[in-house]
Amino acid sequence: MTTPTVDLLHEILDEIRDDRSGELGAHLADYDHPKPDALAIAVCDLDGNVVSAGDDDRRFDLQSASKPFVYALALGRQGVAEVRKRIGVEPSGEAYNEISLEAGTGRPANAMINAGALVAHSLVGDEGDDETARFERIRELFGALVGREVEVDEDIAGIESRLAHRNLAIAHLLAEEKVLIGEPHDVVEGYGRQCALAVDVRELAMMATVFANGGRHPSTGERMLDQQAVRYATSVMFTCGMYDDAGDWVYEVGLPAKSGVSGCLMAVVPGRYGIAAYSPRLDEHGNSVRASRAIAALSAAWRLHVLDSKVGLAESH
Amino acid sequence: MTTPTVDLLHEILDEIRDDRSGELGAHLADYDHPKPDALAIAVCDLDGNVVSAGDDDRRFDLQSASKPFVYALALGRQGVAEVRKRIGVEPSGEAYNEISLEAGTGRPANAMINAGALVAHSLVGDEGDDETARFERIRELFGALVGREVEVDEDIAGIESRLAHRNLAIAHLLAEEKVLIGEPHDVVEGYGRQCALAVDVRELAMMATVFANGGRHPSTGERMLDQQAVRYATSVMFTCGMYDDAGDWVYEVGLPAKSGVSGCLMAVVPGRYGIAAYSPRLDEHGNSVRASRAIAALSAAWRLHVLDSKVGLAESH
Amino acid sequence: MTTPTVDLLHEILDEIRDDRSGELGAHLADYDHPKPDALAIAVCDLDGNVVSAGDDDRRFDLQSASKPFVYALALGRQGVAEVRKRIGVEPSGEAYNEISLEAGTGRPANAMINAGALVAHSLVGDEGDDETARFERIRELFGALVGREVEVDEDIAGIESRLAHRNLAIAHLLAEEKVLIGEPHDVVEGYGRQCALAVDVRELAMMATVFANGGRHPSTGERMLDQQAVRYATSVMFTCGMYDDAGDWVYEVGLPAKSGVSGCLMAVVPGRYGIAAYSPRLDEHGNSVRASRAIAALSAAWRLHVLDSKVGLAESH
Amino acid sequence: MTTPTVDLLHEILDEIRDDRSGELGAHLADYDHPKPDALAIAVCDLDGNVVSAGDDDRRFDLQSASKPFVYALALGRQGVAEVRKRIGVEPSGEAYNEISLEAGTGRPANAMINAGALVAHSLVGDEGDDETARFERIRELFGALVGREVEVDEDIAGIESRLAHRNLAIAHLLAEEKVLIGEPHDVVEGYGRQCALAVDVRELAMMATVFANGGRHPSTGERMLDQQAVRYATSVMFTCGMYDDAGDWVYEVGLPAKSGVSGCLMAVVPGRYGIAAYSPRLDEHGNSVRASRAIAALSAAWRLHVLDSKVGLAESH
Repeated sequence: MTTPTVDLLHEILDEIRDDRSGELGAHLADYDHPKPDALAIAVCDLDGNVVSAGDDDRRFDLQSASKPFVYALALGRQGVAEVRKRIGVEPSGEAYNEISLEAGTGRPANAMINAGALVAHSLVGDEGDDETARFERIRELFGALVGREVEVDEDIAGIESRLAHRNLAIAHLLAEEKVLIGEPHDVVEGYGRQCALAVDVRELAMMATVFANGGRHPSTGERMLDQQAVRYATSVMFTCGMYDDAGDWVYEVGLPAKSGVSGCLMAVVPGRYGIAAYSPRLDEHGNSVRASRAIAALSAAWRLHVLDSKVGLAESH
Repeated sequence: MTTPTVDLLHEILDEIRDDRSGELGAHLADYDHPKPDALAIAVCDLDGNVVSAGDDDRRFDLQSASKPFVYALALGRQGVAEVRKRIGVEPSGEAYNEISLEAGTGRPANAMINAGALVAHSLVGDEGDDETARFERIRELFGALVGREVEVDEDIAGIESRLAHRNLAIAHLLAEEKVLIGEPHDVVEGYGRQCALAVDVRELAMMATVFANGGRHPSTGERMLDQQAVRYATSVMFTCGMYDDAGDWVYEVGLPAKSGVSGCLMAVVPGRYGIAAYSPRLDEHGNSVRASRAIAALSAAWRLHVLDSKVGLAESH
Repeated sequence: MTTPTVDLLHEILDEIRDDRSGELGAHLADYDHPKPDALAIAVCDLDGNVVSAGDDDRRFDLQSASKPFVYALALGRQGVAEVRKRIGVEPSGEAYNEISLEAGTGRPANAMINAGALVAHSLVGDEGDDETARFERIRELFGALVGREVEVDEDIAGIESRLAHRNLAIAHLLAEEKVLIGEPHDVVEGYGRQCALAVDVRELAMMATVFANGGRHPSTGERMLDQQAVRYATSVMFTCGMYDDAGDWVYEVGLPAKSGVSGCLMAVVPGRYGIAAYSPRLDEHGNSVRASRAIAALSAAWRLHVLDSKVGLAESH
Repeated sequence: MTTPTVDLLHEILDEIRDDRSGELGAHLADYDHPKPDALAIAVCDLDGNVVSAGDDDRRFDLQSASKPFVYALALGRQGVAEVRKRIGVEPSGEAYNEISLEAGTGRPANAMINAGALVAHSLVGDEGDDETARFERIRELFGALVGREVEVDEDIAGIESRLAHRNLAIAHLLAEEKVLIGEPHDVVEGYGRQCALAVDVRELAMMATVFANGGRHPSTGERMLDQQAVRYATSVMFTCGMYDDAGDWVYEVGLPAKSGVSGCLMAVVPGRYGIAAYSPRLDEHGNSVRASRAIAALSAAWRLHVLDSKVGLAESH
């Protein structure tokens, strides 16, 4: 990756900079957002080289972008079979906070909706672990992924905590179905803190690259996540990562991706790159308007769609 | 592709031959199936070379495996924008014959469920075309794809016609929503004949290769389907092609695929191969038990999963 | 019943006359309605005495107000057990044209939604009857109820026929579930003609009185409908007769009732009266705005709510 | 009411005594039920005379049979308009513990499902009241209705508390929708204690008679519940009181009624009687098998169906 790459990133941001459409996440209604116009993009290759443009040192809370990592962590710790008993892998075609569980098993449809993410969070611990132990295991993983101590944005965590009724409802349902491990309020509290962990766009791109790299850290080559867990997590991201906009995303962009209501978005190009973008305003599906546009533009420019025949595409030049 | 490939196909069939689980499609209840134990697999590369094993000269009706081709044909003829007004691209998480349409627009969720396939069928014609013209256009495409005149299995077409109540219900709903072009009974009749068009497993592999090849015929290089239409169709196959088993398939096999209730199954490896398999008995999702196992085995053996990092996988040797 | 009654009816109409809220039924979009401001009410006692006010000689198509009579006719002819196998008695909490059938049995929830009304229509005949015979049996019943030959409003029947896609969809589904007797298109055509049978408000009040009178004609004492069938029909009217406004109606008015999209509405006071009102504009539930208000006012004035303790109410004077 | 009445009650119990079908409520899985074969029935007239048969001194927890009283209490205290903002009056056609709330308003469908009952419970207090004050107000009402201090069955309350996950889920959802007053866990705890209040069948019949009597105590004539609130509560009982068996009950029995999972059942004959029955085993809808049969038999014997024309019925002798 050379200067032309940085130039492309700047071009992409220039193209979309004036798009002020969308709204901040509903949970931020009473929050004085420090920088609603922030805009950034970063790409990381398998050797850990990162290029970026825009507000690339601005930290944001990961929110749902934390879900694939925690899911992969749970898969690695408990094994696929155990996790599959408690979380499905089917697209749900519904919104992120939907509450419906599979009839019969009580399983959430997948780990990208909140119900599944709560269960995944509860599965990162060993038996006997309390909520603090579970949360610290996640914080340690994220720290190892980005190479520094990762901290909770306490303002955001406080908001999460005050607005937790829907997640508490889901967690109690999951507890009734005996699908959740741990006490509902503890899990929801810990999950809220997981969502409030803050990184910048270069760090998130590096995190995404661990998925692109089959679970190994791009800089150190150290195994961070189980390889089978990574395949599972990227597969579910592909079909369920963009909420009820999944179908359009698969067609237009064709990359496993996960958005967070803070406005962040990460995408994985298997065997090649991790990508991240950030812009706080969200579309009606809850995905960042400009982060989506930025990654879509990069996918188009570099022909990253995983279902494209390279043969076929070549001729369109 | 050399002898080792044929050997692998034989090995795969040997491995699964004794699996007699599953049931013939429900529509065949009163049909004396000539060969319920048939089993075949074929692979075609981008140069049009086909290797196969098992009952590779046995013809079967395409059923839902015809859907992606007709969808791509409609996309090419009407343009993406026009088709998107009438057919969505979102996974529905439901069974193939579900009846629910999108509130507000009346659009079917996607072109892999019957509602969407009926609309796609109705969109292959020009204005003023009657049902015969629409059907012939489809039959011509299939003929061009496989290199011979393709014919309707009239026994199967008769069964389709007698059991069409659900499709008629769907078609009338689509007509009420003004999403369907043409008269409901005509469209359902023509769609039933589309489903009854018969090919063998080598021919279906070649048809799949047109998708893998970005819309060009693997033997002649001639453009058969619009390139953008192919991307659309493979994307929708990826998330919606295996009915409500889509999630597991994406994880386990990781290839765009489409099954038919006759027991056929085709998969696309973008830029590399088309694959087809056939075995009449179906699992509870309506997918062929042994055809699914065969293609899954091939995907695993050749590491075809589109989301796998080749880097990551290499180390597992 | 004496002059004071007529005075009350006039008072009620005067009270609501200026309410022009609501819209004509959606099926009338292209219809030049001869009298959208028509307003009428009538009451009939168990001796067949009818008093009325307003446009009481204006005929209207019965639409869904025909449903309880046809349901009772079917119950009387086939027996409760046979009809219960094909039509449920549960409120559906949904709109009149909902399409969902009971999982497992394929039964419509009740005979007041279109799905159930189509089945009821199909059940008024003997085996071997064609659609003409079924329709004529219904027309004969209505004629006997009102004491003259009842005719189809052919303009309305033509509209029904052109807009029948949704009912055709429902009928095909019912046929697939083997719940419908007869060919879907024939049944829908006959049902459309049933809905287009036209009476005036005095006649509809007399028809309602047959229910109030346990199935006997108020004038002649002749049995018109089976007594058990009448109980069934009034029970289902009570919980399901006012579409998804059923709950409010039960509370506010407390009478079994059935509305039609032409703007008619009939109510039954068991053992006492039949009531009918007519005004073409409909509220968002599809019930006539002014006909609902008129009957609600009469129920309040005469304390007709079937769940009111007379003891309790007396004290509120 | 004379000896013949008692004889009839004994006859009814004799008729059904051997019916051991059904199961104890699921919440009693780990509970050593002291008397699963208990069977009792009682009728109370508007003068407060009670006749009874069977285990009429056996106390049981009211469970959902408490709901109409608490709903009427809330209606009386807050006014109909205020309560209607938070609780609907439409049948839901679903099971007692369904979780779905009305889109847009977040209102529960009605006060007979748990979601609505939790809101009703939360509405019996004044602003600033804590949960103890709310619960005591309910306990006082029940005490006044039966003429003695009513107590919580602490064994049952303990079970309720341990199995409260589903109600907690519902309560958190209601809190998110701002439909619930009070803290979710407090309300669920208080509601669990409301359900565990214990009376015998003679007392429950007397409680039902307050509804039959327009809100006045049958013995003292004292107003216990607002008259309009009683109409509301009985209307909702009529359409929603027997869970998803409401339709059959309306037809077969024709009385507003409410069952509890302890096996109790009460019915109201407006202007005439209160009826109660008790037998612990439940049918698949959650209604007591034998209590339902007992009250149905009494309704048939005394022709209590509120929609029956007395004229019509007379002839069936």
